[in-house]
Amino acid sequence: MTSVVAGIDIGGTNTKIGLVSAEGKIIASNTLSTAKYVQFPDYIDAISSAINDLMIAQDAQLKAVGIGAASANYKTGCIEHAANLPWKGIEPICKELSGRLGVPVYLENDANAAALGELKYGAARGLEDMVMITLGTGVGGGVISHGKLIHGANSCGGEVGHLRIDYSDNARQCGCGSQGCLETYCSATGVVRTAKEMYGDSKQALTSLEIYNAACSGDQTAIEIFKTVGKQLGRAMALIIQVTDPQAIVLFGGLAAANKFFMPSLEEEMNKNIMPVLRGKCKVLISTLNGADAAILGAAATIPTNVLNN
Amino acid sequence: MTSVVAGIDIGGTNTKIGLVSAEGKIIASNTLSTAKYVQFPDYIDAISSAINDLMIAQDAQLKAVGIGAASANYKTGCIEHAANLPWKGIEPICKELSGRLGVPVYLENDANAAALGELKYGAARGLEDMVMITLGTGVGGGVISHGKLIHGANSCGGEVGHLRIDYSDNARQCGCGSQGCLETYCSATGVVRTAKEMYGDSKQALTSLEIYNAACSGDQTAIEIFKTVGKQLGRAMALIIQVTDPQAIVLFGGLAAANKFFMPSLEEEMNKNIMPVLRGKCKVLISTLNGADAAILGAAATIPTNVLNN
Repeated sequence: MTSVVAGIDIGGTNTKIGLVSAEGKIIASNTLSTAKYVQFPDYIDAISSAINDLMIAQDAQLKAVGIGAASANYKTGCIEHAANLPWKGIEPICKELSGRLGVPVYLENDANAAALGELKYGAARGLEDMVMITLGTGVGGGVISHGKLIHGANSCGGEVGHLRIDYSDNARQCGCGSQGCLETYCSATGVVRTAKEMYGDSKQALTSLEIYNAACSGDQTAIEIFKTVGKQLGRAMALIIQVTDPQAIVLFGGLAAANKFFMPSLEEEMNKNIMPVLRGKCKVLISTLNGADAAILGAAATIPTNVLNN
Repeated sequence: MTSVVAGIDIGGTNTKIGLVSAEGKIIASNTLSTAKYVQFPDYIDAISSAINDLMIAQDAQLKAVGIGAASANYKTGCIEHAANLPWKGIEPICKELSGRLGVPVYLENDANAAALGELKYGAARGLEDMVMITLGTGVGGGVISHGKLIHGANSCGGEVGHLRIDYSDNARQCGCGSQGCLETYCSATGVVRTAKEMYGDSKQALTSLEIYNAACSGDQTAIEIFKTVGKQLGRAMALIIQVTDPQAIVLFGGLAAANKFFMPSLEEEMNKNIMPVLRGKCKVLISTLNGADAAILGAAATIPTNVLNN
């Protein structure tokens, strides 16, 4: 029987479950509606059953489960007061699932899981010191030093979306309550804000995908919008480099696809704002994992390597 | 016979050597001129003899040596191309000293050693995630996560003096070659620059100590100068918090003595520029080690704990 682990990515809309082989291949997967399970015990039933069904179909032996989720407390193994999940309290997901499946269960917040996934299975394989930046609806991140996640005192290590990169009085207001955060420029919503500023009233309510398509068609304003993304991301990456000096920073998420438009201004601004001795040292990589796989592999990567060898 | 370790702090002018007991007490110490030993082998002779003399006088047994120095490569155990030391090449100080003294020798850059010293013997005792910022002629730092130094890919982890905290076009030029760095505001020389701007031609060539004394005497301009220090330091600390989420940031160095003048503006600016969920979480501490002891204890703290227990 093949030994496998399961990776579970819990999103506000869907939960992706996959069985991952020792070689890092997803051999089977399934998707459940997260939102449907308003009661936490029902959700546990559903994901336990889904994993068992996959195991039976593959005739595989389960060694461990790894979970990536928002509002995850890796220390307690609980999902705590999640804003975008149906259960609002403190839910001991690791304990519950471990009880059902009889294997150890690990939990990390989704951006940290993504960083581990990139380290174990993706563009950062073989590195010891790397940073992951996820460019999605918001901007998240995970920082790895000496091969380990920097969790920090409040599990907020790597919250690079809220690095301030604009100190002007009229710096953009961020959803977090602060001002001038990276996320106000380099998320999908940040790009839409820049577009509104740059197009003025001439165009309205463009999505970030439409702006990307416009840039691909040679629209100069759209191209300028991505230059702004690159400049602000370059500033933030310079700050990260001065704090942790990573071998590489990996970009992931929808916006990363636009890298041909933002990479030149990103590298220029990043190198301008670090010590000259560090210029050109940190690689800027684009994730090599595709979206759906990345979430499952990231979740699976939260399982410590030694667990697989037992 | 008492078991001790030796801590060696190599500065451009002087080298401080101390024997440190298992309880973290400096039981004997000595100071040599660094500048006097133009030839590296002569310097090794001098520090080996100094340690042996201290050992004989104390009738102690040496278990290991730890060194803090500028331009230290902790991986190779060499001092490499030091700008402010007499030897300009790559000097294998760990290998040489270990050969002479017959014990393991460890090396870290001085700011990292200071962070370890604070963690092991000072204000950060018992913490796992902390950051040290040294406010001297320049601004240095060391970042500790999960109890370990973040060295980074190029041994530049924790170079927080070169975090950019001013993006205006006329941001101050830094000695590193970049612009708007923390160091241009929050070092002794940075304070002097601010003083020149604020006093204009009315006063000239004040030292940072004179400015501190003026603030103590109630000089409003001097007090404003330290408010600027606090504001810029608060910005940098906010950035560090967003990347590594430490339990505490410890301030060390001459300027730290002026904390009563800069702490209010520091805490205000720091909390303004981090995610609201993190506000008030990270402690700002002032080093509890005195200057001369701190350097020796920091150097001694580079020795891994398990070495002492053998």
